[in-house]
Amino acid sequence: MSTSKELRSDIAWSTADRVVVKGFDLAKDLLGQINLGDMAFIEIFDRLPTSDESVMLNALLVSFVEHGLTPSALVTRLTYLGAPESFQAAIAAGILGLGTVFVGTVEGSARMLQEALEGVPSEEPLDTIAKEIVARHRQANQKIPGIGHPIHKPIDPRAERLLEIATDCGFSGRYVQLMWLVSRVASEHYSKTLPVNVTGAIGAIASEMAIPWNVCRGLGVIARSVGLIGHIREEMGQPIAREIWFRTEAEATRHLRPDL
Amino acid sequence: MSTSKELRSDIAWSTADRVVVKGFDLAKDLLGQINLGDMAFIEIFDRLPTSDESVMLNALLVSFVEHGLTPSALVTRLTYLGAPESFQAAIAAGILGLGTVFVGTVEGSARMLQEALEGVPSEEPLDTIAKEIVARHRQANQKIPGIGHPIHKPIDPRAERLLEIATDCGFSGRYVQLMWLVSRVASEHYSKTLPVNVTGAIGAIASEMAIPWNVCRGLGVIARSVGLIGHIREEMGQPIAREIWFRTEAEATRHLRPDL
Amino acid sequence: MSTSKELRSDIAWSTADRVVVKGFDLAKDLLGQINLGDMAFIEIFDRLPTSDESVMLNALLVSFVEHGLTPSALVTRLTYLGAPESFQAAIAAGILGLGTVFVGTVEGSARMLQEALEGVPSEEPLDTIAKEIVARHRQANQKIPGIGHPIHKPIDPRAERLLEIATDCGFSGRYVQLMWLVSRVASEHYSKTLPVNVTGAIGAIASEMAIPWNVCRGLGVIARSVGLIGHIREEMGQPIAREIWFRTEAEATRHLRPDL
Amino acid sequence: MSTSKELRSDIAWSTADRVVVKGFDLAKDLLGQINLGDMAFIEIFDRLPTSDESVMLNALLVSFVEHGLTPSALVTRLTYLGAPESFQAAIAAGILGLGTVFVGTVEGSARMLQEALEGVPSEEPLDTIAKEIVARHRQANQKIPGIGHPIHKPIDPRAERLLEIATDCGFSGRYVQLMWLVSRVASEHYSKTLPVNVTGAIGAIASEMAIPWNVCRGLGVIARSVGLIGHIREEMGQPIAREIWFRTEAEATRHLRPDL
Repeated sequence: MSTSKELRSDIAWSTADRVVVKGFDLAKDLLGQINLGDMAFIEIFDRLPTSDESVMLNALLVSFVEHGLTPSALVTRLTYLGAPESFQAAIAAGILGLGTVFVGTVEGSARMLQEALEGVPSEEPLDTIAKEIVARHRQANQKIPGIGHPIHKPIDPRAERLLEIATDCGFSGRYVQLMWLVSRVASEHYSKTLPVNVTGAIGAIASEMAIPWNVCRGLGVIARSVGLIGHIREEMGQPIAREIWFRTEAEATRHLRPDL
Repeated sequence: MSTSKELRSDIAWSTADRVVVKGFDLAKDLLGQINLGDMAFIEIFDRLPTSDESVMLNALLVSFVEHGLTPSALVTRLTYLGAPESFQAAIAAGILGLGTVFVGTVEGSARMLQEALEGVPSEEPLDTIAKEIVARHRQANQKIPGIGHPIHKPIDPRAERLLEIATDCGFSGRYVQLMWLVSRVASEHYSKTLPVNVTGAIGAIASEMAIPWNVCRGLGVIARSVGLIGHIREEMGQPIAREIWFRTEAEATRHLRPDL
Repeated sequence: MSTSKELRSDIAWSTADRVVVKGFDLAKDLLGQINLGDMAFIEIFDRLPTSDESVMLNALLVSFVEHGLTPSALVTRLTYLGAPESFQAAIAAGILGLGTVFVGTVEGSARMLQEALEGVPSEEPLDTIAKEIVARHRQANQKIPGIGHPIHKPIDPRAERLLEIATDCGFSGRYVQLMWLVSRVASEHYSKTLPVNVTGAIGAIASEMAIPWNVCRGLGVIARSVGLIGHIREEMGQPIAREIWFRTEAEATRHLRPDL
Repeated sequence: MSTSKELRSDIAWSTADRVVVKGFDLAKDLLGQINLGDMAFIEIFDRLPTSDESVMLNALLVSFVEHGLTPSALVTRLTYLGAPESFQAAIAAGILGLGTVFVGTVEGSARMLQEALEGVPSEEPLDTIAKEIVARHRQANQKIPGIGHPIHKPIDPRAERLLEIATDCGFSGRYVQLMWLVSRVASEHYSKTLPVNVTGAIGAIASEMAIPWNVCRGLGVIARSVGLIGHIREEMGQPIAREIWFRTEAEATRHLRPDL
């Protein structure tokens, strides 16, 4: 079949006595010495994090793990109800809804910021760029990613704390400033409080850390998979999925039943 | 529709200014202070880990993150090829194969150990129990979970290191001893080296930490989702999925083609 | 890398002017001439169905398509809520719960029947076999697959109709008889009506058609994916997922909230 | 929690002796009388298809079922390798890659055609609209959906046959004409043969049948789930997944290994 491209991967290899990941001997260099968030850092950057990077990335990930009975958690519980033998399938099902509406929105804010500052000299004032962003979304009648929250007003406590950590760890530069400015300009334009929300904060800080926007959704996916384990564990002992199903079915089809 | 059961979850709740997870204020108590593995600990145990527990659980999780171009990694890359807009779907697809053959096997070893020692007084000798386990699997012609590895011989370096950390952290008790004994007895019975492999070590240590066996597969799922991000990132810049597809298709259907 | 096994697939191949599936020219021999159920038949049996086989397999599949607001349908709707751009992910999520509790149970009844009659001479009386099956499940304290239904009593209307079609189409042989006998013996033993349910009927008829038990779960998966499309379509115009989420979250975490 | 919206679904309901789908008694009105493609029609249109509609929709679906060892089929096989106990998970994994690159492209062509003709009077000439479509895609440097194929040249045999059936069944109107014109205009502009491909034909015909573009991806998902069953069945007896894994791993990591 003519010439073919070589298959090549630089991530990991193993022999009888070693597993090597990104040049690190997994057993000798990593186990017992780094935490799970650091390992995510290695997967993204091919090197160990500094202490600040470790704190920052772990904080970003931890902020995403748990938000209670989200649609994602309900999906995992309802899937577990039907296939308790497939733990992995219940987690995977819960992950599948992390798209453009929930969690995946972190990708939107990171992309907006990274594209806005790509190739822009560091002396260029950010307020003009913020105004352009708001104007462009307004014209296209699009929601601005990373600002506003239905519940957390006037400020999302997770966003505030993450940005505080970012300052401490040296990740509060132009992306974070631009995110703040977008929030301020948009709040004025729309005459309502549109605070930087948690996905906006994560998108901005991830940009400061040089995480490409198209990898950011992955942070949410990792984190939520951790949280979904807690939901399966609770569902095992204190189930709600079956009751949700019964109630929904009864209420939603009541009008169709001749006998009721 | 008669009486219905109350829906109740004790995991998390949020108001305008707080997100509370297992009684912890997410922003104030957790962000910047714990790592992702610790957050997994909270999801499983409803409390913060001790320092030893933190090291141990993070080590278990890190040991699982990356094993190179596994079937799971190939699945994620091939899914990304068709749906690059659905990052979460590529991760979810990769997770779906973590069943009874790969990774999910950790559940098998943890279950075997936990069921064997349930209600057994601590003075009862473990070698009899190990012999029973091996005999039972032999009779039923079943593979013993947690021992043997096609590549890592005579000892799986990850298993060895994890058990070393377990000793340091105080998690090397009767479950670990029983796992060693099962390995030794089985090696004698089958006259070949059947070392404790990484899933055996994780299963034993997880049992020492009091993680229920039916949650153990979740540890592998969390960990692998971290690793799969590295594979998507590599596939973005240095793709192999399309080439695997083309080669496989060409070779596997060659005999059907009239013109070749 | 030493010798490697040849990759070989006999399913399909294509050239510039042809797509050939199982020896059939897709465009010339199949399109416009067979229906979707027949195509499933070709995938399972590598040949076209007879007229009776076409009616029977389509009936089995149609019987599975829709059962209203099942957990599976709720999962699809809740996933669509978060990732409306990934239609395929919403369907896939809904499919993931078709395990050992719902739909996948068809595998259980088919396996029970196929294993019970494997190598059994056709003159051997079935009632002894039925008694053995019931006794074995009773001893092991296991639910007998294929009988009993929480709602459809004394008889599942889908089961009854499918078995009628099976008689008309020549698929009512020893597997169907054995299924009936298991239902009768079990009803006596447990002193309650345990009718052949729809998964029992499908498992028995699929066995008559010589569909291996380990493929039977696939029939349910195909069929439900058809039904899930209807649920996404309805969710688009008449959504319920968000309301289910809000209500569940509010009720289940009410006891945790200090202000309520 | 204040007022809540009513949950309502009009799809199906069941009682002890009936399962009713879209007003049809499943057992009495549908089983044995319609095929699986017709059931898909009911899910989309809430009514039975005419004879022409039945032939047409089944042909669209059948055309999508099987295209050999696609990435999707490889994903299903590799997932089955790790989790053979979760048939449904292997199918779901294969479905997840049906996104914007493969199969899901049918959504693109249907959307392009439906948006182009929305509110356009039937006497308005189509060639101007086709030119606008081509020009717009050219300006935006976007691929035009529904035309061109890497293998099937000068014409995709499935597309040709589907359009023939569409003529016979009365589904060859302005959407189909517009699709042809787009193909012709684009072929001129780009000076190469860009035939209507199978997703273009399906997109156009689905539009003729009044299937909304945002449901079209679902047709591909249903159909491919049928085909994936054939791939699992073949993988059971004539496996290739393990060999693909071993070869890929060996070749792709060869350069990392010190001993080779």
